[in-house]
Amino acid sequence: MSRFLSSKHKTLVPYTPGEQPRDQAYIKLNTNELPFPPSPIAQRLARQEAGILNLYSDPDCFVLRQSAAAYYGVDPDEIMFGNGSDDVLNYAFMAFADDKTGLIFPDVTYSFYDVLADLHNVRYETIAVRDDFSIDPEEYYGRNATIVIANPNAPSGIALSVEQIEGILKNNPDNIVIIDEAYVDFGAESCLPLIRRYDNLLIVRTFSKSGALAGGRLGFAFGCKELISDLNTIKNSMNPYCINRMTMMAGVGLLSDMDYLKDCCTRIAKIRMKTSEELRKLGFRLTDSKANFLFATMPGYDGKKLYLDLKEKGILVRYFGSERLKDYIRISIGSEEQMEQFLETVRTLVEENR
Amino acid sequence: MSRFLSSKHKTLVPYTPGEQPRDQAYIKLNTNELPFPPSPIAQRLARQEAGILNLYSDPDCFVLRQSAAAYYGVDPDEIMFGNGSDDVLNYAFMAFADDKTGLIFPDVTYSFYDVLADLHNVRYETIAVRDDFSIDPEEYYGRNATIVIANPNAPSGIALSVEQIEGILKNNPDNIVIIDEAYVDFGAESCLPLIRRYDNLLIVRTFSKSGALAGGRLGFAFGCKELISDLNTIKNSMNPYCINRMTMMAGVGLLSDMDYLKDCCTRIAKIRMKTSEELRKLGFRLTDSKANFLFATMPGYDGKKLYLDLKEKGILVRYFGSERLKDYIRISIGSEEQMEQFLETVRTLVEENR
Repeated sequence: MSRFLSSKHKTLVPYTPGEQPRDQAYIKLNTNELPFPPSPIAQRLARQEAGILNLYSDPDCFVLRQSAAAYYGVDPDEIMFGNGSDDVLNYAFMAFADDKTGLIFPDVTYSFYDVLADLHNVRYETIAVRDDFSIDPEEYYGRNATIVIANPNAPSGIALSVEQIEGILKNNPDNIVIIDEAYVDFGAESCLPLIRRYDNLLIVRTFSKSGALAGGRLGFAFGCKELISDLNTIKNSMNPYCINRMTMMAGVGLLSDMDYLKDCCTRIAKIRMKTSEELRKLGFRLTDSKANFLFATMPGYDGKKLYLDLKEKGILVRYFGSERLKDYIRISIGSEEQMEQFLETVRTLVEENR
Repeated sequence: MSRFLSSKHKTLVPYTPGEQPRDQAYIKLNTNELPFPPSPIAQRLARQEAGILNLYSDPDCFVLRQSAAAYYGVDPDEIMFGNGSDDVLNYAFMAFADDKTGLIFPDVTYSFYDVLADLHNVRYETIAVRDDFSIDPEEYYGRNATIVIANPNAPSGIALSVEQIEGILKNNPDNIVIIDEAYVDFGAESCLPLIRRYDNLLIVRTFSKSGALAGGRLGFAFGCKELISDLNTIKNSMNPYCINRMTMMAGVGLLSDMDYLKDCCTRIAKIRMKTSEELRKLGFRLTDSKANFLFATMPGYDGKKLYLDLKEKGILVRYFGSERLKDYIRISIGSEEQMEQFLETVRTLVEENR
């Protein structure tokens, strides 16, 4: 830290991304990446831009927004894009939270929300999830704050229904409700049909997971025109050209090839089901994950030890270590082959641990 | 604007990017893009990433920082990368300006600084440039604020010498001095050799101009390790994966091919000289631009009219229109062919305007 850093940031603790080791070839099941390459059309359109990178990208994302609007059945003014959904969340937190309006989110959720709140010196309150990690929607009724809920939630993968979220929206008519649907394509229901009925609903999405574009960085938001306009006010005051040409066209390509995305999601759901079954046979307990990861604990096997034992065997999973999560590991759903290898390793470890 | 937008942002006026018209093929001399394609190596390395975009990019930018450190002769901890230099400027403003420490910059400069200051509700003061648009360095001595100077400055293209900037650094030992060297490669001197002598110097750079990567979005900062660490604290709390894989490797490719960049800059400097001469022959007055643009006024020809007349003829230049700039247009240096066409059009217009 330098002597010049603003006093408001001196205690800031940055987000801890999942490990990206360079020292060994791991089976990486720790950052919820899709184990399949991006849509061939997305790849092709991205590559085509490499030769004209001397020209700025379109700050309005006109073609990309047209493509997305057509696919999702919304108006181009009801969608905006950012440099990954973290970027979009940042715009949303800046636009809709401040000294007066704080934030509320579950105590167990995406660990970036509290970092972002701290960055902007916005107070936040957490609401405890139940012992089974599920969210009680009624706990979010009548709150005088901007609500942020990941649906499905992380790292549990448990999803609320659209009706449950509608309950939260109805009971907070004067506050923004941000639904972070990063993992929605893998088996949960989207709130998208609600954006025209609730002017307080902002949906945040990403193509990092189901879209196989984690390394491309493309996030987006759906909401009524006024909310989208607010996000654009922030974006255009902070980084107007925030999406590069290659990623922009990868998005256009993907949106023209959404059967590919759906097919990937179907494959992941199948592998998730099979992996869950096998883990349960071994004695693991799992949440009902609708995402591309599993959240699992093995009674009698310390969570941190399991994480380290797996790492030693060349398999990276995510271990959080906080009080409520310390018995659990989060396992991203990899390819069939990766998960077979994972299961074989787990079987051996569980055997040795008995 | 929605009824939910934070009151602190209700009066925010976003940055106005140069026009990106979709309706006609213009000769675009309005956004300071390089008229040459990116380095072939940069293109190739960028394309190679398209097939593995399902994997996250490296949030530490390890390989990219190693490449840059080797080329520029600094330590990898003395450099950090962002999603364009606007992104890096945003980190710097957040880190080094607040309620207590305001900002100071010239009244005529990159029009993004005041937008960014307003976004973060940081007060700023501007110091008038001289009538000839040059900066008086002594006016920046002993200021109790974070100083931001573009060198060469925009839109004048006039550069301060390293000695002049050193004077500013010495006379503000307890405040950060941000030198925005976006255009430095086109003919000005970099302050890079000073970063180990002045812990209050932060240099911001971009590959958007000389690097031909405007559409790739790659900016960076040089400074002592502590300043760079502060910027990373902000970055990693806001958008840890802010650089996509393709752009990251385009940067690595460019850094292995810097003769290409130098060659582009030499060509631009030649075209700039020739264009200036021709404009002077026609009666234009120009600043001594060291950047890839010219800042020019034609006595007796209204600046806005000239901008509009050129636009009608299919040539876009930048017109700012503020009180001090209203007689001027800013002309990006295009290719030999583009500038010949520009000059031919200007000749005709000047003739018609007499």
